[in-house]
Amino acid sequence: MEKRARVLIDCEDAKGLVYKISKVFYDRDLNIDNNREFVDKEHGRFFMRTVVSGLFDVEELLTELKTVTPADAHIRVIEPKDKKIVILATKESHALGDILIRHADGELGATIECVIANHDTLETLVRRFDIPFFHVPADNMSREEHESLMMKLVDEFEFDNIVLAKYMRILTPAFVKAYPQQIINIHHSFLPAFIGANPYKQAFERGVKIIGATAHYVTDDLDEGPIIAQDVIPVNHRLTWRDMQRAGRDGEKIVLSRALALVLNDRVFVNGNKTVIF
Amino acid sequence: MEKRARVLIDCEDAKGLVYKISKVFYDRDLNIDNNREFVDKEHGRFFMRTVVSGLFDVEELLTELKTVTPADAHIRVIEPKDKKIVILATKESHALGDILIRHADGELGATIECVIANHDTLETLVRRFDIPFFHVPADNMSREEHESLMMKLVDEFEFDNIVLAKYMRILTPAFVKAYPQQIINIHHSFLPAFIGANPYKQAFERGVKIIGATAHYVTDDLDEGPIIAQDVIPVNHRLTWRDMQRAGRDGEKIVLSRALALVLNDRVFVNGNKTVIF
Amino acid sequence: MEKRARVLIDCEDAKGLVYKISKVFYDRDLNIDNNREFVDKEHGRFFMRTVVSGLFDVEELLTELKTVTPADAHIRVIEPKDKKIVILATKESHALGDILIRHADGELGATIECVIANHDTLETLVRRFDIPFFHVPADNMSREEHESLMMKLVDEFEFDNIVLAKYMRILTPAFVKAYPQQIINIHHSFLPAFIGANPYKQAFERGVKIIGATAHYVTDDLDEGPIIAQDVIPVNHRLTWRDMQRAGRDGEKIVLSRALALVLNDRVFVNGNKTVIF
Amino acid sequence: MEKRARVLIDCEDAKGLVYKISKVFYDRDLNIDNNREFVDKEHGRFFMRTVVSGLFDVEELLTELKTVTPADAHIRVIEPKDKKIVILATKESHALGDILIRHADGELGATIECVIANHDTLETLVRRFDIPFFHVPADNMSREEHESLMMKLVDEFEFDNIVLAKYMRILTPAFVKAYPQQIINIHHSFLPAFIGANPYKQAFERGVKIIGATAHYVTDDLDEGPIIAQDVIPVNHRLTWRDMQRAGRDGEKIVLSRALALVLNDRVFVNGNKTVIF
Repeated sequence: MEKRARVLIDCEDAKGLVYKISKVFYDRDLNIDNNREFVDKEHGRFFMRTVVSGLFDVEELLTELKTVTPADAHIRVIEPKDKKIVILATKESHALGDILIRHADGELGATIECVIANHDTLETLVRRFDIPFFHVPADNMSREEHESLMMKLVDEFEFDNIVLAKYMRILTPAFVKAYPQQIINIHHSFLPAFIGANPYKQAFERGVKIIGATAHYVTDDLDEGPIIAQDVIPVNHRLTWRDMQRAGRDGEKIVLSRALALVLNDRVFVNGNKTVIF
Repeated sequence: MEKRARVLIDCEDAKGLVYKISKVFYDRDLNIDNNREFVDKEHGRFFMRTVVSGLFDVEELLTELKTVTPADAHIRVIEPKDKKIVILATKESHALGDILIRHADGELGATIECVIANHDTLETLVRRFDIPFFHVPADNMSREEHESLMMKLVDEFEFDNIVLAKYMRILTPAFVKAYPQQIINIHHSFLPAFIGANPYKQAFERGVKIIGATAHYVTDDLDEGPIIAQDVIPVNHRLTWRDMQRAGRDGEKIVLSRALALVLNDRVFVNGNKTVIF
Repeated sequence: MEKRARVLIDCEDAKGLVYKISKVFYDRDLNIDNNREFVDKEHGRFFMRTVVSGLFDVEELLTELKTVTPADAHIRVIEPKDKKIVILATKESHALGDILIRHADGELGATIECVIANHDTLETLVRRFDIPFFHVPADNMSREEHESLMMKLVDEFEFDNIVLAKYMRILTPAFVKAYPQQIINIHHSFLPAFIGANPYKQAFERGVKIIGATAHYVTDDLDEGPIIAQDVIPVNHRLTWRDMQRAGRDGEKIVLSRALALVLNDRVFVNGNKTVIF
Repeated sequence: MEKRARVLIDCEDAKGLVYKISKVFYDRDLNIDNNREFVDKEHGRFFMRTVVSGLFDVEELLTELKTVTPADAHIRVIEPKDKKIVILATKESHALGDILIRHADGELGATIECVIANHDTLETLVRRFDIPFFHVPADNMSREEHESLMMKLVDEFEFDNIVLAKYMRILTPAFVKAYPQQIINIHHSFLPAFIGANPYKQAFERGVKIIGATAHYVTDDLDEGPIIAQDVIPVNHRLTWRDMQRAGRDGEKIVLSRALALVLNDRVFVNGNKTVIF
């Protein structure tokens, strides 16, 4: 039976890759519905995302693609299916709410398996959408103890991605390592950046004219992982820092949802500490 | 001797095009330095822009590529060379000035063959840059008479593109037809649009919060040709319509220069009344 | 007891207005917490929004302000209170959902009295938030009959504003006239504009690079009322027109919510067919 | 004879300031053509910019305004006159070129007294516009020696502002102190920021999706002075860091020119480490 899949290839660059890979598709009489490649000349890496349709066996296709690509090739053949996500949150509802509405609307392209929070503030909101909510308080325990509870809970679910929808705790390297290239975070950004507590207040004190939001993969370096999406919002001296924070929330929720859509559509490759987005 | 070229292919879509075209490059042992394709599914058209390097003869490569592509294929193999442009202007200096500075800076990627204007206002500015300036007044003559003078002058030059840098006269179909897909124009745009005289004043009267600029290829439909680049600038009720016009000029010059760079780099395909930009 | 109010004055311009009005506040020993004026020189109109605090009687203050302002002055002294809104919708959930989340979050600055729709698609979503939902089908009846049902229902509520959250029916002049400067609408906008059915498809066919959204007061001229807020989203040739529509929705919901916040904070004056926004 | 002036007042906040100041204008029968105030509640500072016209003596007006404002008031009554600027540059022409074109066009609102550079690269360009160019090489001398030569030259001119149009040397505190709130600089900015050498390369390595530009007053803290204007440009993974740099230049020149226009129109107050912009 005719079917469709996304083929994602990420490998060392080599001569003739486009030819060899497209030959595999051509010889099997597959249709190419969409195709994009990118070569990172500086690091000599090749990225390709092709949507193919026709008659094929996933395992066979994978095997054949391996024979024409370098040994380090990371190849995925992804058949269309509903993705699954787990959301971590704290108290703020804007980023979470935006995802919940898209989910209710059928626009998200993923099922929300559950929302887990270190406070119970958002329980009412989440339950309105008949989505499981778990409260894992962090009081009176070490970061490690709390995270081990979180991981135990997270691991009860099957999921493709963990979305930090304004989860205000810093993840330990152990947590990050357990879900490589699976955790997406959103944080505010400024031109220039402000480090330390209450960056909105710092940005206000400096009189910035633009505030931004950055969605990125979580790596060990806090807020320093590969960027997926960014956007900005103009502000002026009439705004208090709380006004700026409020304005920033719109940017945060839109950018997080945009990044999530890209990830769920398998459009994002991680390339060192940056991304290739098709 | 090793050389480099941009290969541009635009044809009816067909199975295996990427495979067949990349096979031509592979068989000739050419390096692919950059490659992008796009299929317009709705109209069944295929677009591809590849930068190749290696040992090849342009005519041979063209011939071979024709054998693997549909009969309607429009194929170009463009070797690096300095492009040439002719600029038409009227009285305003912002768009022209931006191009002159880039030209002086060596950043334009093209030689300005001459500037032709229907007023002499800009003569001093152009001569500062040692670029030929021609004044072709339109007084006391019909549009046809004026344009025939313009075309006669334009035709004395060799050029790749004609840039309308705020040339405030409407070109006749005869002029447009003489230089197909070669004429680039810039005009202000609004959300929503305003038709008729003095759109800045109309936009002001409506209280728009955003003004924009659109660079496009010129076709018979005035200001309706395929869009190459667009940008916007936020405004507010404190601006007079002249302030808006002033603000709009920054957008116009940046968008025109951005569009011109895309065109000079052979990154723009015309696809019906729209563009594919790589 | 100390209290606080927003004083909004809108009148013919005259010499000394700032002096005379600020004298009223000064003589009564009121604090000015925030003050903005604007003079539309072209139409000779004066606008002022002042937040005052101190000891005052609203009626007395109004009377005194009338004695120092031109006869046509429209003066409002608005004490802080929760505003009320009625939402009209059809089938799309993005704009409505954004308002519902802000409402649930306490960030909206208004109570949603009810949501009224000509389809029942959104009923489940609205009920999740314990907000009254009314379905007023338009089948088998004239526009006038349907609207008279709508108005009857709307009039059962007390409200400050009616928000059209993607209400896809055109309101009759009778409806618009019944709620002057109270109805807020959101619609997509393009550079340039496209008139007629399916503008996203038209924009796609033209290959626009930017799509926008415009929030405005509803007047008799469909989509032509005074603009409150606008924003844009960049797009490219890889998007289908459905992708553009999806991208446009993010703009629509953010711009509508931003406009609503301005209106609920009494920051918007209507000035002919445009707005003054403080 | 009727004349016009900009009145700028900057002082400790106090009750009745708007009333008392507008009374001065009213009692002298002056027209208020434009008026804006702002109170920084956090720091208790009042800012007011009023354009008045009528019959008045500048000294008398100043004296009278002093009697109604707090002791620390900084009051300026600025009559319309052509401002004067001195430009410092190095090798890059984009920011300088943008100012030169506006100057040639009569749009700048200031006379360029001279351009001073530590390299002679820009001499040809500047001379095209008949503007004095001075080359002050920094070779074989200490920073202090070079700057003392620069200051000596700068001081030969009368000017309102010094514009650093990509002047790539760091000014010493002595230089900055000599021209307080007079020096304007432009620099690229990123979300997040990158510190150290070659930030474009760092931004590229991180895969930023947006690059920005910030115009600010120069203070002792390098690139940390009060921000006047900012803007951003979207980028993607297909750009090399040199492409990003090229894209960034458009932002830099537009933002610097925008900031300069605000400053020359006396629309910018410095308020601690930020600005109030009317």
